[in-house]
Amino acid sequence: MTMKLYCFGESGNAYKVALTLGFADVDWEPVHVDFFKGETRGAEFRTLNVMGEVPVLIDGDTVLTQSAVIQDYISSKTGKLGGQSAAERREVLRWMFFDNHKLSGQAGPLRFNMNFLPEDKRNADINGYLSMRLHSALKVLETQLDGRDWLASSDVSIADLACCGYLYYPEAFTFDRAAYPRVDAWLDRIAALPGWKHPYDLMTRAYPPAD
Amino acid sequence: MTMKLYCFGESGNAYKVALTLGFADVDWEPVHVDFFKGETRGAEFRTLNVMGEVPVLIDGDTVLTQSAVIQDYISSKTGKLGGQSAAERREVLRWMFFDNHKLSGQAGPLRFNMNFLPEDKRNADINGYLSMRLHSALKVLETQLDGRDWLASSDVSIADLACCGYLYYPEAFTFDRAAYPRVDAWLDRIAALPGWKHPYDLMTRAYPPAD
Repeated sequence: MTMKLYCFGESGNAYKVALTLGFADVDWEPVHVDFFKGETRGAEFRTLNVMGEVPVLIDGDTVLTQSAVIQDYISSKTGKLGGQSAAERREVLRWMFFDNHKLSGQAGPLRFNMNFLPEDKRNADINGYLSMRLHSALKVLETQLDGRDWLASSDVSIADLACCGYLYYPEAFTFDRAAYPRVDAWLDRIAALPGWKHPYDLMTRAYPPAD
Repeated sequence: MTMKLYCFGESGNAYKVALTLGFADVDWEPVHVDFFKGETRGAEFRTLNVMGEVPVLIDGDTVLTQSAVIQDYISSKTGKLGGQSAAERREVLRWMFFDNHKLSGQAGPLRFNMNFLPEDKRNADINGYLSMRLHSALKVLETQLDGRDWLASSDVSIADLACCGYLYYPEAFTFDRAAYPRVDAWLDRIAALPGWKHPYDLMTRAYPPAD
């Protein structure tokens, strides 16, 4: 049965799942969510996900939310993109928590604030704070990639597909690939995998909101 | 063998692990980390954890970081505090990702900024932003606890012990338990479990830094 993914192009968290579905050769189709008109915050969407967020994955009777949980589900179901042992699986999970908390958890809001908020609501102090925290996380990523091709195991895993989730977007969020050469090479490595697509080629954009 | 937990009293992320170890009846001892003197940011600590953070758990040859990964490890090893099925374990994991990203991920930095930063570095705009995001997450928690005793399964799980991690601390971070009656009752429910301890009774405090 074809899985359905509630998503929109600008969501790096949805992109992580879309990439994972693609690389795991799963049959799926997108359900476009009109994020910038508030769809995820509405009562109807909240009955699907109390957290009021994409991505949401529907696989038959199974409804899943939180990108990392969905990635883990796809990996478990297909036997692809996970670790090869319990220790490797913990290492994969470790980098996914790091991503959600420290990396995407800063990059996502910062990119939103700098590009999708009305200009009169953008605040330099807040964005400076998020940027400072983002660069702390990018430094950790740069250190971890010293002498390694992939973050958490000997092959590409869902940890890589989580941590890269916001890093291909063209909008400014103080991230300059040239400042992080190992991260830059790792992003090229992921983008060279067969079937890779840019987020805007994989999911329909929702910004600017239609009138 | 006695597990060792690198921790300090003010870390809600370490507290999540300390609570989990206690409720799972695991033999453990704390290794105090002098956080406010910069110990976790130093080169020596980074060889233990490239992410430069507590908690770190040592169990024989196994070194683990990220509170949720450690909680999951303890739950798997002891067969306690996890879900009863694959679906329940995914639901537990879902709330742990929500916690790391949306709940503790805001409460931790906000409490740090409001209490442990020098006064001349505290910024009302930044803290207002973190508070706004924290209260969005608290509303989700309040909704989820409607008609439920525990967040993710029929009994207390590591998801509850993650989400409560910052919510017992006495320092101000714009959280008033009375404004979230279901969260308030759930925190009382956790605190009534045999063996529960307040974070400052479980781990040595590191603030103010010794001269």
